[in-house]
Amino acid sequence: MTAYKKLTEHFKKISHFNHLAAICGWDQAAMMPAGGASARSAAMAELSVHIHKLQTQDSLADWFSEAETKTLPPEDTASLREMKRQWVQANVLPEDLVHAKSMAGSKCEHAWRTQRTNNDWKGFAENWKEVVNLSQHEAQIRAEATGLSPYDAMLDIYEPGTKTEFLTPLFDDIKRWLPELIEQVIEKQSHENLLMPQGIFPATQQKALGHKVMELLQFDFNHGRLDESVHPFCGGVPQDVRLTTRYDETDFIQSLMGTVHETGHARYEQGLPESYAGLPVGEARSMGIHESQSLFFEMQVGRSPSFIHHLAEMTGKQFGKENEPAFASDNFQKLYSRVNKGFIRVDADELTYPAHVILRYEIERDLMNGKISYLDVPELWNEKMQAYLGFSTKGNFKDGCMQDIHWTDGAFGYFPSYTLGAMYAAQFMAAMKKTVDVDAAIRSGNLSPIFNWLSDKIWSKGSLLTTDELVKKATDEALNPTFFKAHLESRYLK
Amino acid sequence: MTAYKKLTEHFKKISHFNHLAAICGWDQAAMMPAGGASARSAAMAELSVHIHKLQTQDSLADWFSEAETKTLPPEDTASLREMKRQWVQANVLPEDLVHAKSMAGSKCEHAWRTQRTNNDWKGFAENWKEVVNLSQHEAQIRAEATGLSPYDAMLDIYEPGTKTEFLTPLFDDIKRWLPELIEQVIEKQSHENLLMPQGIFPATQQKALGHKVMELLQFDFNHGRLDESVHPFCGGVPQDVRLTTRYDETDFIQSLMGTVHETGHARYEQGLPESYAGLPVGEARSMGIHESQSLFFEMQVGRSPSFIHHLAEMTGKQFGKENEPAFASDNFQKLYSRVNKGFIRVDADELTYPAHVILRYEIERDLMNGKISYLDVPELWNEKMQAYLGFSTKGNFKDGCMQDIHWTDGAFGYFPSYTLGAMYAAQFMAAMKKTVDVDAAIRSGNLSPIFNWLSDKIWSKGSLLTTDELVKKATDEALNPTFFKAHLESRYLK
Repeated sequence: MTAYKKLTEHFKKISHFNHLAAICGWDQAAMMPAGGASARSAAMAELSVHIHKLQTQDSLADWFSEAETKTLPPEDTASLREMKRQWVQANVLPEDLVHAKSMAGSKCEHAWRTQRTNNDWKGFAENWKEVVNLSQHEAQIRAEATGLSPYDAMLDIYEPGTKTEFLTPLFDDIKRWLPELIEQVIEKQSHENLLMPQGIFPATQQKALGHKVMELLQFDFNHGRLDESVHPFCGGVPQDVRLTTRYDETDFIQSLMGTVHETGHARYEQGLPESYAGLPVGEARSMGIHESQSLFFEMQVGRSPSFIHHLAEMTGKQFGKENEPAFASDNFQKLYSRVNKGFIRVDADELTYPAHVILRYEIERDLMNGKISYLDVPELWNEKMQAYLGFSTKGNFKDGCMQDIHWTDGAFGYFPSYTLGAMYAAQFMAAMKKTVDVDAAIRSGNLSPIFNWLSDKIWSKGSLLTTDELVKKATDEALNPTFFKAHLESRYLK
Repeated sequence: MTAYKKLTEHFKKISHFNHLAAICGWDQAAMMPAGGASARSAAMAELSVHIHKLQTQDSLADWFSEAETKTLPPEDTASLREMKRQWVQANVLPEDLVHAKSMAGSKCEHAWRTQRTNNDWKGFAENWKEVVNLSQHEAQIRAEATGLSPYDAMLDIYEPGTKTEFLTPLFDDIKRWLPELIEQVIEKQSHENLLMPQGIFPATQQKALGHKVMELLQFDFNHGRLDESVHPFCGGVPQDVRLTTRYDETDFIQSLMGTVHETGHARYEQGLPESYAGLPVGEARSMGIHESQSLFFEMQVGRSPSFIHHLAEMTGKQFGKENEPAFASDNFQKLYSRVNKGFIRVDADELTYPAHVILRYEIERDLMNGKISYLDVPELWNEKMQAYLGFSTKGNFKDGCMQDIHWTDGAFGYFPSYTLGAMYAAQFMAAMKKTVDVDAAIRSGNLSPIFNWLSDKIWSKGSLLTTDELVKKATDEALNPTFFKAHLESRYLK
């Protein structure tokens, strides 16, 4: 057996164990009774150890060395590159650092759940200091291994190939026009009348509605399911995608669009190339590209007037309220494009969201590169919040730098993916519209032309191309913030 | 670390992987969409290979040799005995035999699904020949390793310590009085009027009713759930028991008592000793003892007049039919104690069930011991069926020897567990009644005295005692068919 073949067999073996982890992880969030938690944690931990052993097994180094001396067909070269990438990621950190970071992260995250409520920055900072320290150490090691700057080395975990020198100008561009645009839109919307749907919307009915919307979005129920969990997510495996949502019986608005969002993630997974199933090259390209698909569904398709029209109609019918003014298309359109400035990222709308992300990006970048200390974070947060959204967070830590879970366990480098996703999505839509009559497809209720384009350009590519290649092939140019700006102006100022 | 300690650590590690297999197995039956099947099979097969590797790893032999030279406290001695038992079971067969049997079994079972419908004995026999051959070979190897007869060595997989010399006289006893008793009961019941509940009983309502009955039976919903699957079963792990049932919207009778049955299995699992969690000694004693608990719930408690009274009341209330005569207690009692002779084991009632089991026991025993050929089976089936239940199955293979799945993949030695379970259950009830006012407990709706007895005598013992020790400690004597006979006469002739 060639070294390349040995590697593919080995990575497929790893994917079988990842399959079990994905299903049991979904079960833990969506099905497991509370009393099962400790036995499950022990089983999952054992599985992690086993997967890590497989990822770091000695023979892999030799197989990579040997495989890299051979000339391979282009797709195999890409597959080898992606296996190597995952192998390096799994092997670059010494085990005691991984363990120490995991312990410090769990401790910090656990305490944060109460500290945040109590606005207890001092208590939080005590634990967080260690998480930041260990993460800086991690970034340093990753930087040495990759030749990147420390922050870029962290970013590379989530966004392979994306660097600060690429990201900073993009985000600077957004910063130049976003605050002004937000003010204009808020002023414009202040004259609009908005009707909130009133009533009790039973979870079973919301679920039936969710199923119908997923059918419209051509989710493949032979390869996936919809269930409930406290924090909605898209899990499982490409052959069996497990999507979750949660229902508030007094308000279906969030949950309904949340389902559209998760369905975008799900269809990307369901559309990944079958011929590379179980191999890294058959996986999603990056967190940003993944988010580009969920946001394509939620923001580009889901909030378009034609889709909103379907949503309003389906919702009115489901709840027997077709004739109530709150369920009219134009009211739904207003409901789903309302802009409000606020402290909290997860509650932010499409327009203000990038401000939250850019603020975090600038802070975590400087933190990982050692330019600032963890103690500087609250003041920097306050300054940037004032500059981008006009709020002070002085002394208000719980609605400021303590609001997110990401940093509590050291996931530095993740935040940019959200706004990269939004920008990619806008650019994909602009490119798609050159050859597809998107609006007609949505109006007709048969969205296949849209999904065919996405499948052809994005889903079926897995990780065969780099992110940059993928975007250039799909849209004829590199990521360009113009499309995002044009999309926002057209949606919110027209 | 002592060898004994190394063994316990190792078996706990195996149990973590068994946990994943149990949850993913449950998911496969109760949750997974059809399209997920092939990826799941591959993942589960990989997991099986891994578990088998852990069970057969070289160092275990040395650890057992070393541990067996030491004097251990009694509970550790039992724990060592049970680890050894599982280790011997996993190591006794050469891998190529395991593989060949698994292949031949899959092939035979798969074809059987159509062959049975077509009454195609000739086609079936062609595949089955190989399964029987390989099973005889297996029995031979197991016999050599244990010093047992071939059939006893197979029986030992499911019923450790139970032998033909013990079982044959028990079953012979039953054979002496059962056919006559069946005729008497059928004659007696022929004069009874029976009302079948009519209507549509929605699955959601049946599920709600199932939950209520499980609460009455003190199922711990913090450590388990109720779901649906085509073939009801009790799966999961003791900390998180996954019980399934299925609903027929025109008939709730089977499903409701099925839930009672599975709850018996479930409470045994939930009641296993926590201090031995993850170790073989902490597992259920045998298939027969497991079945004794499900049948204790279903037959001893579930079909008692006081429990039937609760069931009738809860069911009438659930479906809003309290005042219909079909939902009266005495009609429910008749419904749940109706005796009918039939060809099919899985449809058999409490009274005729042992006839089906004894017939199979006698045939599989002689088959494994090489006294008969697989070609003799249809004729023997016909003879025994005529003798025990008065039916001819000549030429009717599909309702005769081709009706069960067990033999298609070579699970010889399993059938006796069903009737052993029924006999143990009757004996446990007789013993319990010496100190517990069972009927008063059921009537009061607080069944704790019953469950405390079971927990104390059976559940909390795991596999610390042998089956024989367990039964003697709980009931002051070895298994004695008198109790079963007395139970049947009292229920069906009084």
